[in-house]
Amino acid sequence: MLTKKTVNAFLDELASSSPAPGGGSVAALAGALGAALATMVCNLTIGKKKYADVEDDMKKIKAEAERLRTRFTELVDQDTHAFNKVMEAYGLPKDGDAQKALRLAAIREATKEATLVPLEVMKHCIDAMALAQQVASAGNQNSISDAGVSALMLHAACEGAALNVKINLNGLADSDFVGWKSDEVESLLKTSKIMLEETQSIIGEKMKRD
Amino acid sequence: MLTKKTVNAFLDELASSSPAPGGGSVAALAGALGAALATMVCNLTIGKKKYADVEDDMKKIKAEAERLRTRFTELVDQDTHAFNKVMEAYGLPKDGDAQKALRLAAIREATKEATLVPLEVMKHCIDAMALAQQVASAGNQNSISDAGVSALMLHAACEGAALNVKINLNGLADSDFVGWKSDEVESLLKTSKIMLEETQSIIGEKMKRD
Repeated sequence: MLTKKTVNAFLDELASSSPAPGGGSVAALAGALGAALATMVCNLTIGKKKYADVEDDMKKIKAEAERLRTRFTELVDQDTHAFNKVMEAYGLPKDGDAQKALRLAAIREATKEATLVPLEVMKHCIDAMALAQQVASAGNQNSISDAGVSALMLHAACEGAALNVKINLNGLADSDFVGWKSDEVESLLKTSKIMLEETQSIIGEKMKRD
Repeated sequence: MLTKKTVNAFLDELASSSPAPGGGSVAALAGALGAALATMVCNLTIGKKKYADVEDDMKKIKAEAERLRTRFTELVDQDTHAFNKVMEAYGLPKDGDAQKALRLAAIREATKEATLVPLEVMKHCIDAMALAQQVASAGNQNSISDAGVSALMLHAACEGAALNVKINLNGLADSDFVGWKSDEVESLLKTSKIMLEETQSIIGEKMKRD
């Protein structure tokens, strides 16, 4: 598991001449960092008298943020695994028509899978952005910049995952699948951008110098 | 050292009820992830016949990206350390005028230091964004999405670090320092945004479906 490596070892493996882990795994990791920061703001809000009114909400947000963090960390590995499967498929023998057909089918299947992993990352980013927005508005005011970094990481994760969906879609001929998924990517990107802007506006207001 | 922890342990510590590490360290880590991805694209370009013309450039970019990655990983710890110093200063005794004056001076010094760390992160992000842009335009075409995720991480790191500079400036009364540093933050943010847009435009062009 990549997330069982030290941060330095993960960075070394990322920087190495092996193409995986790459941007797809980094996008999932950025999602996990964003979710962890949302949890932190909940933890710094829960139990504080000043925030007793939002205590129950913060507990719910925390549980959801932790669920998403777990899923993001799994997706760090799944993206690398899906990429390696595509590479394996390209490496299949291609002597004769039967082998060629099998190889192409394997590439198609692996590429579809490699599209679905970052697409899942994008969807979770939107869910986690909603949590970042809630902690920015109702969480501990002292942690407002942490809520902001959470939203920034989640938006970058969403945009990074989108690049990974698109590059894989470029390798597919199935025009229905490509069309549907391209529309989905554009719609998720739009949502993420709007949510980031809303959250930044909440944070900008709260961080105004007195 | 935070980067000697496993990725999972780092995420756990981030999510915990301790306010540090928080968004400032995450911004520095996002910088390290962006720099590592730029190095990866260099590594996937160097030694390839098709890219022999840019080999020397890629070697230089790689050396610079690795230098920045090392600095970013140091800044992950330095941000947490600077935050803890601010908290320690707030914890100093305040019985009598002499103690009060010493405490306020300690808070002021620690808060200035906590401003300078994320400001350094922002500057390195701009330097690393220039490298991400170069690998996007001249590096291995198969790694174009990795160059894109590199630029996205660096821009999110720059914006995240800016929030940390601003929240610390809010705690300072020295209007000259606050004015200079606020201007510097706005200028760096503007540069980062322009560089991201330029890089995204290069990448969008290269990723167009044939």
